[in-house]
Amino acid sequence: MANEEIKILGGSWAMVGGDGPCSYSQNSTYQREMADAAKGMIHGEIIEKLDFNNPHFNSSNTFRIADFGCSAGPNTFFSVENIIEAVEHKYDTQLHNPPPLEFQVFFNDVIANDFNTLFNTLPSFQKYFAAGVPGSFYCRLFPKSTLHLAYSSYALHWLSKVPKEVVDSKSPAWNKGSILCSGTSKEVAKAYSAQFKNDTDTFLNARAREIAGGGLMVIIIAGLPDGILMSETGTGISYDFLGSCLADMAKLGVVSKEKVDSFNLPLYYSSAKELEEIIRSNGHFCIERMDKLNHPMSQKKPNVEFLVSQCRATFQGVVEDHFGRDQHVVEKIFQHFAKKYADNYYSIFSGVRHQHIDFFILLKRNID
Amino acid sequence: MANEEIKILGGSWAMVGGDGPCSYSQNSTYQREMADAAKGMIHGEIIEKLDFNNPHFNSSNTFRIADFGCSAGPNTFFSVENIIEAVEHKYDTQLHNPPPLEFQVFFNDVIANDFNTLFNTLPSFQKYFAAGVPGSFYCRLFPKSTLHLAYSSYALHWLSKVPKEVVDSKSPAWNKGSILCSGTSKEVAKAYSAQFKNDTDTFLNARAREIAGGGLMVIIIAGLPDGILMSETGTGISYDFLGSCLADMAKLGVVSKEKVDSFNLPLYYSSAKELEEIIRSNGHFCIERMDKLNHPMSQKKPNVEFLVSQCRATFQGVVEDHFGRDQHVVEKIFQHFAKKYADNYYSIFSGVRHQHIDFFILLKRNID
Repeated sequence: MANEEIKILGGSWAMVGGDGPCSYSQNSTYQREMADAAKGMIHGEIIEKLDFNNPHFNSSNTFRIADFGCSAGPNTFFSVENIIEAVEHKYDTQLHNPPPLEFQVFFNDVIANDFNTLFNTLPSFQKYFAAGVPGSFYCRLFPKSTLHLAYSSYALHWLSKVPKEVVDSKSPAWNKGSILCSGTSKEVAKAYSAQFKNDTDTFLNARAREIAGGGLMVIIIAGLPDGILMSETGTGISYDFLGSCLADMAKLGVVSKEKVDSFNLPLYYSSAKELEEIIRSNGHFCIERMDKLNHPMSQKKPNVEFLVSQCRATFQGVVEDHFGRDQHVVEKIFQHFAKKYADNYYSIFSGVRHQHIDFFILLKRNID
Repeated sequence: MANEEIKILGGSWAMVGGDGPCSYSQNSTYQREMADAAKGMIHGEIIEKLDFNNPHFNSSNTFRIADFGCSAGPNTFFSVENIIEAVEHKYDTQLHNPPPLEFQVFFNDVIANDFNTLFNTLPSFQKYFAAGVPGSFYCRLFPKSTLHLAYSSYALHWLSKVPKEVVDSKSPAWNKGSILCSGTSKEVAKAYSAQFKNDTDTFLNARAREIAGGGLMVIIIAGLPDGILMSETGTGISYDFLGSCLADMAKLGVVSKEKVDSFNLPLYYSSAKELEEIIRSNGHFCIERMDKLNHPMSQKKPNVEFLVSQCRATFQGVVEDHFGRDQHVVEKIFQHFAKKYADNYYSIFSGVRHQHIDFFILLKRNID
């Protein structure tokens, strides 16, 4: 393997595993609604843009799909089935009496992901050969030109790491008193934005090697409307709230103040313009479509219990990675969060005017 | 996918997961010694028999290896690295200035296998792209003609299921009072042998579809010397001993007598002749080599603690699958086994004259 493929191990956190009440698999309704909303768009785009006469799709009759950042299921299974249905339809209609197509589907997520739960919940009669691929999607994960369709839903706004300047008290980008890129400090936003640009470029370069010429990539990613700051959105306010709960925990001596000061979420919500620029300057993919994804939950304020469970399933891994895996401490943090959130929900959220955006992006691998 | 590929789910047991004191990963020294003994043979055979000028190896420069029945590691990693080293050597010497070869390695085992531990212990700088493939190797697991080298070590003497006649009190093959195919009852042996023949044929048919013409398959499998019964070997006597401990447990009321009567190990140790006949009558593969594998532990009587831990790591999954996962019960069974075994070790094993055999088999996929 060439030198370019040096491993960036990426974060060691993952969504909460298993299928218990706090698990991601039980708390990913939002992501599911998003996948449902994208279903028709994906189907239509595959029918229109996938081309089996493309000479770069070799004639082996194996079609390879990978989901980058699949988590522990079950959302990934619905998305994959939808993709396969569309690909089969296009294959059967575009080619004249073609031999049967066989599908190999690769489920990728970080090593810390709960692949045991993923495999245990695989549909018993799937129409594809399944494989799990452990590792950060900011690294090479597949041999050259072996994928035909890549998919990544709600994963790429997770950075490979927190930019180091934001936890450096000597840097002008020190993110004191905040756990996220709220957008209010230009220096902090610049550091996060640079990390996002670098990570996304790394992702696109890795996928460019792996996806055959003419292959498609569907990306669903959280972002911001033009001119809106993260701190002005419901999501940003919720995450800030988690930050204030961590500060409370430091005051109560549950965790140290230093630990709280050095905690930042490895998340970045970009604008459409920023995303577009990164993809264009990368140069390996053509943007076939970039749209806002509308779904029932995108504009409504969800109820408290839902939001609290969703936050925990998503962030418990990052919290444990930073504060340690003492379940007593973890329990205290999230119980406090749940209570404080419930107590303050209406007063805080009554004034929220903005929501973040979910982008639907379809890329086509250029033929070199 | 064609109708022939109906799923046989196979057993839901697996080797003991994790990396604790009872885990397979901590108790697979025997298998490791065997892999070490096979190392040179595998290397030599690949150099001699693998042919990159074979037109059925397409020109994608991806070489795909699968380990069928890899368990939770770490043995599989050593074997895979050895295989890659030999393949790279052959590739570089046979072809003139070839483009770099990329390796994709698939680690297969049943869904109940601990893939999380497998992925967590993957070497950090592996020279290949890794993937886990969950499912019984008695099913199709890969698209057509996509593998170049298959490997299966100490896995194929595990049957897909216990033959139903041996647990049927109305059948002449009822295996009353025994938990294994000891060889003393012809009817029982016939039922086990038929199951083994059927399973091995199914395995070979599935692999024949998946391995490209000219591709190799290395099989290491436990078996018996000609004319020796399982009950005459050290291994057979050990397994019988586990059976007598289960009978003790029934007498003490820890488990029910019915449960003990209906418990049989899904294991079959065949003779060289039997194996050879199955492979020849299957017809998809040519036997390039079939030898007895000599290794330091193959002839010596291991110490008590070693044997007890090894038995537990191997059989706890099957025992739990049959008797339930109550850890109190499981603990009692294996503690009794350890004690009784230690108490009787010298008196019983002083007279053992025979050991089972480990076979090394190299097959080449016929070019249709």
